[in-house]
Amino acid sequence: MPLMSTPLRIVSYGLGPIGLAAARLAASKTSLQVVGAIDVDPDKVGHDLGELLETVSMGVVVEADAEAALQRLKPDAVIHCTSSFIPAIVEQLEIAARCGVDVVSSSEELLVPDLQHAELAARIDAAAKAGGATVLGTGVNPGFAMDLMAVIASAVTFDVRSCKCTRVVDASTRRLPLQQKVGAGLSESEFKKQLATGRFGHIGMRESVALVARGLGLKVETIEQTVEPVIAAEDHKTPFLTVKEGQVAGIRNHGFGRSGQQTLIHLDLAMYVGAPEPRDEIVLDSTPPVHLAFPGGIAGDEATAAMLVNNIPGVVAAPPGLVSPLEVAPPRLVR
Amino acid sequence: MPLMSTPLRIVSYGLGPIGLAAARLAASKTSLQVVGAIDVDPDKVGHDLGELLETVSMGVVVEADAEAALQRLKPDAVIHCTSSFIPAIVEQLEIAARCGVDVVSSSEELLVPDLQHAELAARIDAAAKAGGATVLGTGVNPGFAMDLMAVIASAVTFDVRSCKCTRVVDASTRRLPLQQKVGAGLSESEFKKQLATGRFGHIGMRESVALVARGLGLKVETIEQTVEPVIAAEDHKTPFLTVKEGQVAGIRNHGFGRSGQQTLIHLDLAMYVGAPEPRDEIVLDSTPPVHLAFPGGIAGDEATAAMLVNNIPGVVAAPPGLVSPLEVAPPRLVR
Repeated sequence: MPLMSTPLRIVSYGLGPIGLAAARLAASKTSLQVVGAIDVDPDKVGHDLGELLETVSMGVVVEADAEAALQRLKPDAVIHCTSSFIPAIVEQLEIAARCGVDVVSSSEELLVPDLQHAELAARIDAAAKAGGATVLGTGVNPGFAMDLMAVIASAVTFDVRSCKCTRVVDASTRRLPLQQKVGAGLSESEFKKQLATGRFGHIGMRESVALVARGLGLKVETIEQTVEPVIAAEDHKTPFLTVKEGQVAGIRNHGFGRSGQQTLIHLDLAMYVGAPEPRDEIVLDSTPPVHLAFPGGIAGDEATAAMLVNNIPGVVAAPPGLVSPLEVAPPRLVR
Repeated sequence: MPLMSTPLRIVSYGLGPIGLAAARLAASKTSLQVVGAIDVDPDKVGHDLGELLETVSMGVVVEADAEAALQRLKPDAVIHCTSSFIPAIVEQLEIAARCGVDVVSSSEELLVPDLQHAELAARIDAAAKAGGATVLGTGVNPGFAMDLMAVIASAVTFDVRSCKCTRVVDASTRRLPLQQKVGAGLSESEFKKQLATGRFGHIGMRESVALVARGLGLKVETIEQTVEPVIAAEDHKTPFLTVKEGQVAGIRNHGFGRSGQQTLIHLDLAMYVGAPEPRDEIVLDSTPPVHLAFPGGIAGDEATAAMLVNNIPGVVAAPPGLVSPLEVAPPRLVR
């Protein structure tokens, strides 16, 4: 029988939609206690976290000064949801590291931090080791559906020659920000303008390809992606918006890991309003062959909040440093 | 880029069918080097391992004295495949622990060692910690298909109320020992006689239920199993044997984890000649719901050899002690 243990003390750092979802989930857990909240938004600072979560008062007031909060509270871990991009979060992570606080972060780039930001990754790793903190980037995609699951499925194989992952999300069943993120209702030219900003569509495809390559030991030389709009063939109405025939219904995002002309990894993500047969599917060209499917698909926003919270005990138990999901104990339901 | 590192030095301990399959696989890996082999069978001692594997000579001679071999070779890890049952292996594991050698074992009971042998488990754990060795029990079933995968799938959930895993194996596609193990071709009365020996059918169902209960934090009070013969409705011919109508085609093995009258965990294993729709399937009654399937099913014997080999790096990296798959890095393909 496991002993009853003291709850892990958690601070929520970043209170956007994902951060609030993760905070709400963490607050519901017996083995976790949300003891602090950090956000720079003046509309949130000074308010009780319970107010932002639309629940009862939690006695946790949102603070703007991360270092002061972490120094004072000395939590076991931070749930970090401020930005997708490493350059925007490196100082935040260094603060947590200096305070000796472990971090689970929703930053998509942080899943394979050295892929696009080798120097910053080394800086975060050094800070984490110096402060005795463990830092992990995680989420459902990237972080689970199109990468970690494929890697874990390889456990039952002798050899893997290539990997194909398919994720189909019917965006009409998702929240408004996701529908907007995939461009539902835009014209094709607006879509292309948005895409050029680099803050649109799915973030983390390259990181997923890289995680699969490392996890399966596939010798990938180039990682590329393509992003195309999916055009609606008929009108679709969601609870939030209407997509007319000829407008953009969403995105099709392919990721490729290649060695020369050979495609070793192909990740195929479709997120659009009206997408048929939503599912997650993994096919390893392996000995023996592996075919794995989640019919209906893995829920998106809920799953990312879940992955953040469910990785906390593994991260707290892991040795210090900027770590990969390949190195920590597998995530599982936290009670 | 990962640095090229020295191969891990491996000793194969136990050279039955699974041990030989794992040794053959380990020998094929660039990052592993099989440096020794241990078995007490006089027909094997003194022979080159390559001879037993029906390959070229490996310069590895099978030895009977485990302690002498491990003391001399000081390998990084042992692949241990001598028995399913903890009382039969406790001294073997203590020897490895004394020699400071990490162990991955195919012993089904070792997956959740304290379930049926709390005192022996404590003894092994103490020896492992004293010797600086990590000891893990693993395999495909128990160890992956009906337990670990269900636990890992919970990573994307807020809550799990119950878990159902189904594994259907068409025994006609498997090796002779598996067909014999499930009683194919026996009469019903012979089947029951065999079953009473406790060395027949599938071993490890209780351990799977326990691993799911612990991994998902389900408050299971009782663990029970039922084993029934599946009677052939028509004649079946396999490459090895014939099952006539009315004879036993194989087994149906249910495992239940209950709290009072409530079934929180139901594992349903069917292994018989002619079983239709072979597959592995996991359904979590969870928020959000999770449904996961391996159409065609996870290969059996190959997968157990793979799980042994693919867990080696995680076990070598883990801190000393008798550990659970819930605590080590997720297994993945070793190159």
